[in-house]
Amino acid sequence: MLKKSPLAPKVFPSLPNIKGVRLATASCDIKTSKRDDVLLVNLDPGSTAAGVFTKSKLAAESVHWSKGVLKRGNPRAIIVNSGNANAFTGDSGKKSVRDLASSTSKVVGCHPKQVFVAQTGVIGEEFLAKKVTEKLPNIIKNMNSDWKSAAKAICTTDTFIKGVGTKVKVNNKSVLINGIAKGSGMIAPNMATMLAFIFTDAAIPSTILQSLLSEVNELTFNSITVDSDTSTNDLVLLCASGRANNLVKKSRAVSQFDSFQDGLHSVMQDLSHQIVKDGEGATKFVEVNVSGAKNYTIAKGFAFSVANSPLVKTAIFGEDANWGRLVMALGKCGQELNAKKITISIGGVEVAKNGTAVFDYNERAVSKHMKGQNIILEISIGEDAGGATVWTCDLTSGYIAINADYRT
Amino acid sequence: MLKKSPLAPKVFPSLPNIKGVRLATASCDIKTSKRDDVLLVNLDPGSTAAGVFTKSKLAAESVHWSKGVLKRGNPRAIIVNSGNANAFTGDSGKKSVRDLASSTSKVVGCHPKQVFVAQTGVIGEEFLAKKVTEKLPNIIKNMNSDWKSAAKAICTTDTFIKGVGTKVKVNNKSVLINGIAKGSGMIAPNMATMLAFIFTDAAIPSTILQSLLSEVNELTFNSITVDSDTSTNDLVLLCASGRANNLVKKSRAVSQFDSFQDGLHSVMQDLSHQIVKDGEGATKFVEVNVSGAKNYTIAKGFAFSVANSPLVKTAIFGEDANWGRLVMALGKCGQELNAKKITISIGGVEVAKNGTAVFDYNERAVSKHMKGQNIILEISIGEDAGGATVWTCDLTSGYIAINADYRT
Repeated sequence: MLKKSPLAPKVFPSLPNIKGVRLATASCDIKTSKRDDVLLVNLDPGSTAAGVFTKSKLAAESVHWSKGVLKRGNPRAIIVNSGNANAFTGDSGKKSVRDLASSTSKVVGCHPKQVFVAQTGVIGEEFLAKKVTEKLPNIIKNMNSDWKSAAKAICTTDTFIKGVGTKVKVNNKSVLINGIAKGSGMIAPNMATMLAFIFTDAAIPSTILQSLLSEVNELTFNSITVDSDTSTNDLVLLCASGRANNLVKKSRAVSQFDSFQDGLHSVMQDLSHQIVKDGEGATKFVEVNVSGAKNYTIAKGFAFSVANSPLVKTAIFGEDANWGRLVMALGKCGQELNAKKITISIGGVEVAKNGTAVFDYNERAVSKHMKGQNIILEISIGEDAGGATVWTCDLTSGYIAINADYRT
Repeated sequence: MLKKSPLAPKVFPSLPNIKGVRLATASCDIKTSKRDDVLLVNLDPGSTAAGVFTKSKLAAESVHWSKGVLKRGNPRAIIVNSGNANAFTGDSGKKSVRDLASSTSKVVGCHPKQVFVAQTGVIGEEFLAKKVTEKLPNIIKNMNSDWKSAAKAICTTDTFIKGVGTKVKVNNKSVLINGIAKGSGMIAPNMATMLAFIFTDAAIPSTILQSLLSEVNELTFNSITVDSDTSTNDLVLLCASGRANNLVKKSRAVSQFDSFQDGLHSVMQDLSHQIVKDGEGATKFVEVNVSGAKNYTIAKGFAFSVANSPLVKTAIFGEDANWGRLVMALGKCGQELNAKKITISIGGVEVAKNGTAVFDYNERAVSKHMKGQNIILEISIGEDAGGATVWTCDLTSGYIAINADYRT
């Protein structure tokens, strides 16, 4: 791994076993022979799943395959490899995904279409499924609940291993949620990709599970950006083994899962923030909050325009409270704006208001805030109720160094 | 000025006097007192003009003012300052633009609404018009045809002075076209801005002039990007003094200006390329050519998605023919794509075809091309007739250094 990000959490959390979910990792020499690069997850019969996928129009074959598995239902396994994205690899890439699923289904004892496939690494390089399939009979013999090894096996250019867990009550039963993720950006630094896998022992019907995931995903993984580049392989899967026996048979009410959704939100927000904190070359974690817009979508558009602006991000790296660049980023969005209604705060200090600078703002407080690791930009654009928060990191010389050297 | 870009032209061209167009520059201490930072252009009565302006929804007051001048017609002067963009400066900013125009109109002898105002520099800082207006009576006494000084006075973070000229025949009369520009990106590096001023002695009715400018602008200044950040102050003005006496009175046919439009295209393409070649930190000039799309707009969307991708641009800086990143940038556009119809060439060598890599491509030739200063990326996405070309530069550690340090 590269030098650890200065924004990395101190330790990987201790994650409990989740009944109905078994893990195993192995080294299959996909890119190098030095590390585990394959993760197999085995799910109990009766598990449900939900998923969200990259919107790339050149999505990798594994993405198309996994969408089919989700549609069919009754998932039994997930096979993940790092080191090769198997994207833009034509018919041979398609065949290798089928081979992976088919071989996994044999060792697990299910139909190939019950096996999710997820892949991450360089685009356009041929993927040899055989490297993985020939080791599967051994891998299945070593199932465990070592979440840290699982989280490590899916990493590519990550500088730290990403995981988090929580416990909530659903219908008075304790329910666990564990999540692991990889990526130095949801938005595809290095054409490696963002993957996240979340597991729970809760029993949740798949249609409800999907709506919970989609809703929370919009506020978490779909609210982060490192560099605005969308991957061909992004995928978030949420699998529920049902072993917590929390279902009250007579009720199909979604509201019984409110606390689950809260827990899911905290797990997914934490994982998505970990990805931003591992954004390539990142030295600062940045929250962009836009309020007063007509609706959530418009607010999020403005927030992302700020969070994706190279000029805003380099100013933050330079610890420069250059709010004129925020004005630029708002203005280029295409949505109507009234300058006189715009207020901009940095670290809680108003620096611009009513369409002009606050000439006597506390420069010392703002300068101190800019030198910190957590930067908060708050922008109000009017009196309407629409608001959104997105997260990003700064754009640094480290980003250039990492990405100019990637394949060589 | 910063260290000159390695992509800069060898010399500033020798530009001829254009009848009916007079220039003067002066130092007005707007940001520093070390250099000329104001340009006054005086146009003969009867001149016509055309203009295109930033689409920012927080456009600077000078942009709104100049749109009004264009609408009124009969322009007589342009007053330009560098060092302060006078954007997001509220009512005082609005008043200072009126003061500039009014004082200029007095020394020139016209109505204030016949005076274009253009400004460039930092956003959100108060602009004191008096610094300029009190010097105008002296400036008007020193009118000349020193195009190099004019081009220099409008620069901010530019590392070289930008100008170009050409000569064409219109109705058998010789017609001159001179252009000057500033900017290290059309797309607003440093929140300084892109400005371009083009002058001709041709006689061209203003409605025709506007349609010629808009058409060529789409293929030149609207086809370049440095960092995807759109400025609040961008503006291109084309002024025609009419002194070449090229009008055939009985004809209003646009076709008589075909050769003028060709000349205009060569001037604007050259100026726009000069801006890309001065893109902050640039070490390579990149042409992205997309063909086979349904129409020009779709092709241009794909081309800009490639040209704005930080991962593509850092790979080019790293001299890495990582075409997987081109696949990623195409895929994230949102437009439908058929992988099997995509062909990608780098420096004329096919590296991907029919949805997969060309495994035996000439790596040596591609590697040599990547080490050069001019990079050509050609992407065909199908058999339709829509194509577009855009130009950009690489994303380098120099860009980060310049923009992390700008205000300090």
